[in-house]
Amino acid sequence: GWVRSVRSQKEVLFLHINDGSSLENLQVVADPSLGTRDLTFGSAVEVQGKLVKSPHRMQNMELKAETIRVVGPCDIWSFPLKMKERHPLEYVRQFPHLRCRNNTLGSLLRVRSEATAAIHSFFKENSYVHIHTPIITSNDCEGAGELFKVETSNEAMESAEKNHFFDVPAFLTVSGQLHLEVMAGAFTHVFTFGPTFRAENSQSRRHLAEFYMVEAELSFTESLQDITQVMEDLLKTATSTVLSKCPHDVELFHKYIAPEQKVINVTGRCCSPFMLISYSEAVEILKQAAQTFTFKPEWGCDLQTEHEKYLVKHCGEVPLFVINYPYDLKPFYMRDNEDGPQHTVAAVDLLVPGIGELCGGSLREERLHFIESRLQRYLDLRKYGSVPHGGFGMGFERYLQYLLGVDNIKDVIPFPRFSHSCLL
Amino acid sequence: GWVRSVRSQKEVLFLHINDGSSLENLQVVADPSLGTRDLTFGSAVEVQGKLVKSPHRMQNMELKAETIRVVGPCDIWSFPLKMKERHPLEYVRQFPHLRCRNNTLGSLLRVRSEATAAIHSFFKENSYVHIHTPIITSNDCEGAGELFKVETSNEAMESAEKNHFFDVPAFLTVSGQLHLEVMAGAFTHVFTFGPTFRAENSQSRRHLAEFYMVEAELSFTESLQDITQVMEDLLKTATSTVLSKCPHDVELFHKYIAPEQKVINVTGRCCSPFMLISYSEAVEILKQAAQTFTFKPEWGCDLQTEHEKYLVKHCGEVPLFVINYPYDLKPFYMRDNEDGPQHTVAAVDLLVPGIGELCGGSLREERLHFIESRLQRYLDLRKYGSVPHGGFGMGFERYLQYLLGVDNIKDVIPFPRFSHSCLL
Repeated sequence: GWVRSVRSQKEVLFLHINDGSSLENLQVVADPSLGTRDLTFGSAVEVQGKLVKSPHRMQNMELKAETIRVVGPCDIWSFPLKMKERHPLEYVRQFPHLRCRNNTLGSLLRVRSEATAAIHSFFKENSYVHIHTPIITSNDCEGAGELFKVETSNEAMESAEKNHFFDVPAFLTVSGQLHLEVMAGAFTHVFTFGPTFRAENSQSRRHLAEFYMVEAELSFTESLQDITQVMEDLLKTATSTVLSKCPHDVELFHKYIAPEQKVINVTGRCCSPFMLISYSEAVEILKQAAQTFTFKPEWGCDLQTEHEKYLVKHCGEVPLFVINYPYDLKPFYMRDNEDGPQHTVAAVDLLVPGIGELCGGSLREERLHFIESRLQRYLDLRKYGSVPHGGFGMGFERYLQYLLGVDNIKDVIPFPRFSHSCLL
Repeated sequence: GWVRSVRSQKEVLFLHINDGSSLENLQVVADPSLGTRDLTFGSAVEVQGKLVKSPHRMQNMELKAETIRVVGPCDIWSFPLKMKERHPLEYVRQFPHLRCRNNTLGSLLRVRSEATAAIHSFFKENSYVHIHTPIITSNDCEGAGELFKVETSNEAMESAEKNHFFDVPAFLTVSGQLHLEVMAGAFTHVFTFGPTFRAENSQSRRHLAEFYMVEAELSFTESLQDITQVMEDLLKTATSTVLSKCPHDVELFHKYIAPEQKVINVTGRCCSPFMLISYSEAVEILKQAAQTFTFKPEWGCDLQTEHEKYLVKHCGEVPLFVINYPYDLKPFYMRDNEDGPQHTVAAVDLLVPGIGELCGGSLREERLHFIESRLQRYLDLRKYGSVPHGGFGMGFERYLQYLLGVDNIKDVIPFPRFSHSCLL
């Protein structure tokens, strides 16, 4: 492991060693004669000895060293991390190649790994087929300004042939939904969990150019409740798994990074039932609020962050589903509720304390005549055994921010990419 | 589910329904009066009734229908898949949005999903931390001609600012190795499983522009055997999981797609021990071969596909490790064996029957003075508690080709991307 502290006394040498498997260090007790000049903070060591019960009440076991070998010395003068210093997250972010050596990032990466495994397990246990939806796509599904385009870096080839590598313009995906809908025409439950991309020129704490999305699509759905049930189960299962597998890692965040944030906590808050209101009810609640908003709440207008925060607070600081949004606010593929002429669609957003929107989903319009004037392939999917289906997507980094109370999204991903920054 | 066949007799109507959960269909037995004009091959139906023991020996259960509702009719005249026709893989490849409705692709996608889950489980059970290594990177790690570059599609912004979205040229990753090595400086075992990209202008059966790699990095490694052991365990575990979870899906491939191919088979072939020879031994074997090669085998030259095939055959058609390659053949980060002045490095390739190279790995050069003249960040990693480490990568599509005996790599990925083709 790596040395986290060295304390040399007259009679005894104490080391704390960490191997990345947990936040806790192993205490090594050695004869001072085993100490060498390069046995410093940050160095990598191999220690052989006996694991014995520790006399100290703070730890269970300690290692009585027989040999200590420094396999990789550490140049502590230039090493940007210092012993026993609590570096701010902004500071360690400058060192993408070394910040995983910091306690907070270590905990984050273990939590991220557990959450990833928990999400895969949840879907597997519920018989979903995992699909690798493509990263490079010729679909220009959302506003073109936000897309990254992909070209070969071989200038000669590009210009000589006067065409694209793929013959057509190609982009980095913004969502796997269309490709999952393809698969939902052959499998009743499918999911994907991969990177998605937005070329937004934003320095916000909430946006990355490259981020991960969990997306699911369900066939033969009867109602929005089929979708909200899966979202709620997914969130509760993943969260309780992470809380039980990495309690100390989560505690570090709740104690030092977000002590006041109303996040999911270890005592079972994550198990309180989620609330559900309609968009129309939401607008009524906002209109009757004593609070004045920058954006006046009005039926037909998008909910703003201030509105979402108020609604979550109003409902008791628990995750809140808002369903049945105005037809004109949502994309063409969402299912018309037919509660009036193009009045509302079966869309749902899940709002959570401290974050706002965590997931978005909808029933998809499966009826050919409702979307006849659209993309040929999208139509084809509805020509050959179309089924009522729906799905949702969850921003994985948003989820980690919610879980841990991390303010800046750049601190919950191993190598953040955003405008003006692509380190390493 | 979706109707796979309709057989209307005088007294009884038989349907075969498939919901994508397995290759097997459910037989529905109904009164002919329940049949409607749109109850055709390809249509999506909801059937209610009683599940009863079947009198036929080919199936266990059948559904005695009480109601049949066509929820999505299928325009069978334009539907490119036909009832009871065995379409060639080349044919269905033209319909990226519909080919998952084909039996072979259905089996492939279930196998791919199981293999993905098995690989994640293997690493989880062995205490590896999962890392999402970045897709967009500023590292130009291999030959620049093979890289895809990433730019915003917003022409105005690009040209107006006369600079890149990330301030630096950015590319799609060709490997997560460097980023895993970063993490191997804080965690003793890490892995990644994500998309990688090559802009090779190739129409070969072995190459895609977008493909998946499983990569692992291990710290405190003592020898190449630490690495080959993990490669062998991973392959055996994943393979036996897939064989036990999807026996019928795998059988379909072995029976109809690759009947003669010497692939892993259900009777336990995957459990025979892998062989190991050194590069020098390999060259000796090739020199003594009765066969004449297009490329004369010579110490210091790369092994060609014809050589790899001969070696695998010579060793009994089992997976074969070849270790300790000439120093000059391998990249700078591989560890010098010091068996002579820059003679060999601790590199390993795993060759498998029918495919050739499936995995490649090495011990990494952890000693600062051996690579002093290289990249600053790569050096930094070795300045602050560097440890002996090594790792490997496995092409996931190659693995599926090997497992199933699929000739063309385009048939083992949901949405293949290659030069001149990016459908959907």
